[in-house]
Amino acid sequence: MIDKAYISQQLMLLQDDICNALQLLDGNAFIEDVWQRQGGGGGRSRILEGVHIEKGGVNFSEVYGPANAQMNKILGIEANDFYATGVSIVLHPTNPWVPIIHMNVRYFEAGDAWWFGGGIDVTPHYVNPSEATTFHQKLKEVCDRSNPLFYPRFKSTADDYFYIKHRQETRGIGGIFFDRMTLPEVDKTQGWQLIHDVGNAFIHIYTALFNANYERQYDEHNKNWQLLRRGRYVEFNLVWDKGTKFGLETDGRTESILMSLPKDARWLYDYKVEEGSNEAATLAYLKKGINWITIDNQ
Amino acid sequence: MIDKAYISQQLMLLQDDICNALQLLDGNAFIEDVWQRQGGGGGRSRILEGVHIEKGGVNFSEVYGPANAQMNKILGIEANDFYATGVSIVLHPTNPWVPIIHMNVRYFEAGDAWWFGGGIDVTPHYVNPSEATTFHQKLKEVCDRSNPLFYPRFKSTADDYFYIKHRQETRGIGGIFFDRMTLPEVDKTQGWQLIHDVGNAFIHIYTALFNANYERQYDEHNKNWQLLRRGRYVEFNLVWDKGTKFGLETDGRTESILMSLPKDARWLYDYKVEEGSNEAATLAYLKKGINWITIDNQ
Repeated sequence: MIDKAYISQQLMLLQDDICNALQLLDGNAFIEDVWQRQGGGGGRSRILEGVHIEKGGVNFSEVYGPANAQMNKILGIEANDFYATGVSIVLHPTNPWVPIIHMNVRYFEAGDAWWFGGGIDVTPHYVNPSEATTFHQKLKEVCDRSNPLFYPRFKSTADDYFYIKHRQETRGIGGIFFDRMTLPEVDKTQGWQLIHDVGNAFIHIYTALFNANYERQYDEHNKNWQLLRRGRYVEFNLVWDKGTKFGLETDGRTESILMSLPKDARWLYDYKVEEGSNEAATLAYLKKGINWITIDNQ
Repeated sequence: MIDKAYISQQLMLLQDDICNALQLLDGNAFIEDVWQRQGGGGGRSRILEGVHIEKGGVNFSEVYGPANAQMNKILGIEANDFYATGVSIVLHPTNPWVPIIHMNVRYFEAGDAWWFGGGIDVTPHYVNPSEATTFHQKLKEVCDRSNPLFYPRFKSTADDYFYIKHRQETRGIGGIFFDRMTLPEVDKTQGWQLIHDVGNAFIHIYTALFNANYERQYDEHNKNWQLLRRGRYVEFNLVWDKGTKFGLETDGRTESILMSLPKDARWLYDYKVEEGSNEAATLAYLKKGINWITIDNQ
C-alpha cells in the first residue's frame, strides 16, 4: 500500500541511489549529517564538497507534528497536524560549463488532505540549446508516462516559479514544477508513480549533462561569469523561493535549507556582457515561454 | 525653511562629502551612475570597486509619484502620492579586520504625512569590543544632541532590526536605527537636524575604523572567515531587510538596491569555528542587548 511510511522509505532509497551515483561522478564521498527535529521527525543531510561538484546537497527529511499558525497561513490550510517527507537536491559544479541542477520530490499530509509535489530544473551558466532540448524531452517523457497534459502544465509552472522578478529573468532553462497533486487528478498510487519517475530521472539527466561538460576547458572569464550567475541563484533562493521562505519562517533546519547556496558567489555593480558573447546569448535565453523541445524549428 | 527640496539638496552635498572622503581613504575614485525613475525622480548611484574598499556604494535618490497599492500596504498607509529622498551607504572592505559599515538617512512624505528615518550599523568580521564601545559612544553623542532618550531606543531598535532570525544571531554589533520620526516627537527642523548629525557622523566613524585596521596583516583563514560572514550579510539583506524587500517589491532600481551585496561571498555547509578562536569570540558577541558602552564593566 502506498502510504507515508512506504513513500518515506522509498525516498530514503532514492537518496542512497543518487548519492552513490554522484560519488562515482565526483570521486569524493558525501558526508552525512543525521538530525532530529524538535516536535517530530528529522532527516539525513548529505553534503558533497568535492572535486567536480564544488558544493552539493542531497537531503532527505521526514518531519511531522502539530501544524502551527504560521505554517497554516503559508499553506492556506487549517490543519492541526502535518506530515512531510521529501528529497531535495542542489548541485553546484566546479566547471562553469556544467549546469547547476535542482530536484525535489515531496509528499505532504495536513489533517485529512494529502498531496505530492516536485520538480527538476536546470540553471546553466552558459545555455546550450541542444542540451536544453534533450533535457526537456526527457522531462516530457517522464511526465507523459503519468498524463500527457502534465508536461506543458508543469513546464509552464516552472517558468513562472523559477523567475527572478527583480531581474526580469528566469533562473535558468526551467524544467518542471508541480505541487498539490491530489485527488481527483491523481490517487496516491499515481501520485507516487509521478514523483518516483521524476526522482529516478534525475540521475540520468544529471549524468548526461555532467559527462558532456565536466572536462571542458574554462578560463578566468568563464569562472567570473559562473560566480555572477551563482549570485543570481542566491538572489532567487533567498528572495523568491517559496520553499526556502517556508523553511526559514517555520524554523526549519537552516543548514539543510541553505545547502542550496553555492560555495562562492559574486556581485559586481551593473555588470554588462559583451555584445555577441556567449554570456549575451545566455541572457537572451533567460525568459519564460521558450518551447525548448521545438526551439530549433522556431 | 526645512522642506523636501532643502533636505534633498543637502543630502546630495552629504553624498559628495562622503564620497570625497572615501576616495582619499581608498585612493580610487567612485564611478557615478545617474538614473531616472519612470514615474518620477531618480538618483545618483556611486560605486567604488577599489583597493581597500573592495566594493562600496554611496547612493543618493529622490523619487516621487503616485503611491501604488503595494507601497501603501507595505507602509501601512493610504496615500495617493509619495516622496522619498535619502542617502544609503554600504562598504565592504578588502581587509577582514576592517568592519562592513552601513548608513542610511532618509526623508519620506506620503499624502499629508512626513517622517525621517535613518541609522548606522557596523558588521565586523572580527568583533573588537573596544572599537565597538567607541562606536556606540559616538552614536550616543550624536543622538544625545537631539534627545537623550533617543540612543537607548534607537540602539534597541537596531538590535531587533539587524537580526538574522534563521541564524539566531545579530548581523554585527548593531548601532542605531530609527524610522517614522515625525510630530509630536520631532518637527521638521529637529528631524532634519537628527539625520544631518547622523549623516555627518558617518565619515568620522568609518575613518577611525578604517585607519586602525586597513593595514593589518591577514591570512587565508581570515579571508575565508570574511567570505563566510559576508554570506550572512547577504542572507540578512535578501531574507530579512525591509528596505531591500520594499525596493525589490515596488520595482525599485535593482542595481542600486543590491549594491549592498559584497563582491564575493561564501557558504560552507555547517561551518564550525574552533573553540577559543577569534571567530568563536566574535560569534559570542553576535547577540541582542549587549550594552557596548559599559561592556568593560559587565
